[in-house]
Amino acid sequence: MVYSETIKLKMKSQNFSNITNQVDEIVRKSEIEDGICTIFSKGSTSAVLINEDEPMLLQDLKNSLGKVASEREIYQHAENAFSHIRSAFVGNSQTIPIKEGRLLLGTWQEIIVANFDVVDREREIIVTVVGE
Amino acid sequence: MVYSETIKLKMKSQNFSNITNQVDEIVRKSEIEDGICTIFSKGSTSAVLINEDEPMLLQDLKNSLGKVASEREIYQHAENAFSHIRSAFVGNSQTIPIKEGRLLLGTWQEIIVANFDVVDREREIIVTVVGE
Amino acid sequence: MVYSETIKLKMKSQNFSNITNQVDEIVRKSEIEDGICTIFSKGSTSAVLINEDEPMLLQDLKNSLGKVASEREIYQHAENAFSHIRSAFVGNSQTIPIKEGRLLLGTWQEIIVANFDVVDREREIIVTVVGE
Repeated sequence: MVYSETIKLKMKSQNFSNITNQVDEIVRKSEIEDGICTIFSKGSTSAVLINEDEPMLLQDLKNSLGKVASEREIYQHAENAFSHIRSAFVGNSQTIPIKEGRLLLGTWQEIIVANFDVVDREREIIVTVVGE
Repeated sequence: MVYSETIKLKMKSQNFSNITNQVDEIVRKSEIEDGICTIFSKGSTSAVLINEDEPMLLQDLKNSLGKVASEREIYQHAENAFSHIRSAFVGNSQTIPIKEGRLLLGTWQEIIVANFDVVDREREIIVTVVGE
Repeated sequence: MVYSETIKLKMKSQNFSNITNQVDEIVRKSEIEDGICTIFSKGSTSAVLINEDEPMLLQDLKNSLGKVASEREIYQHAENAFSHIRSAFVGNSQTIPIKEGRLLLGTWQEIIVANFDVVDREREIIVTVVGE
């Protein structure tokens, strides 16, 4: 069985958004008991990560990403190269197991979307549940 | 339902290859309407990423990867440690949702294989479509 | 069809553990011939990677991760920010194709769990096989 829904998020530049509750709700609506859930961000300057949703940690993560792709560096690609590169390092999709109708996340694991682009954007996140 | 095919690519060292059209074609042949598509690269010095296929951007990405794993640094592991490390940072597989028989990619998202090894290689990419 | 099992690992801080044989065995028990296998680590300071299991290479990888998230740096988030950030860079899950009842890994690809936390931990790895 397959069930999918799209989450739309209005996001500020360089911001994060916690979508765990929305994904949980989609898994519940799918009525799939066992399987996997793929969360995919439809944008080459965005990313999906599974980590603790703590503002200071997410700032630390941005600083670390700045070490590989600084906002201030000169790139060959136009204006938002660092946004694309940060997306490539973190990744565009995550897959989480489902058991007894629930996402099997750890205590400190939340599903977080990042908008790394230089402008605010509406982000589309596709949640697909596959199982039985 | 499950459908899979292997794409073989002759790739130069440190080069990228856009396989979006080949993956699209495999999804079409699968006749799967809804589900997910996993693209896996069978090599520990290669990677799969989903990003814009723009030569200057991919050069910028290589420069950023060079900051964590430079070609010129001395490693404990023989000759191609930086190739393995770049693969670990970018990742070996990506999973993309399928809706109405099509990959749900964003406008600037392409499926790109990287050969980070110090030598040219034939890369095997396994595309697996799961759904209904 | 869906089959899943949890692997529990007692892991030292900053250590790696090769779980390829355990995942192989779970795939065999699933009796699924074609599909995908998702390996998910239930911890925001852990990661799963697919790479060569060679101690010097894994030390090189730790050194590279130290360039983006050093153990000695000052972070805003309490004590183990670098553990979370390393997890975000490497990723919490990997998806591998299955064909004829076997994981389709390359010659030098092993499934490796990392415990990046500052303390020893029991890690839970959920292996989910989806296919037919």
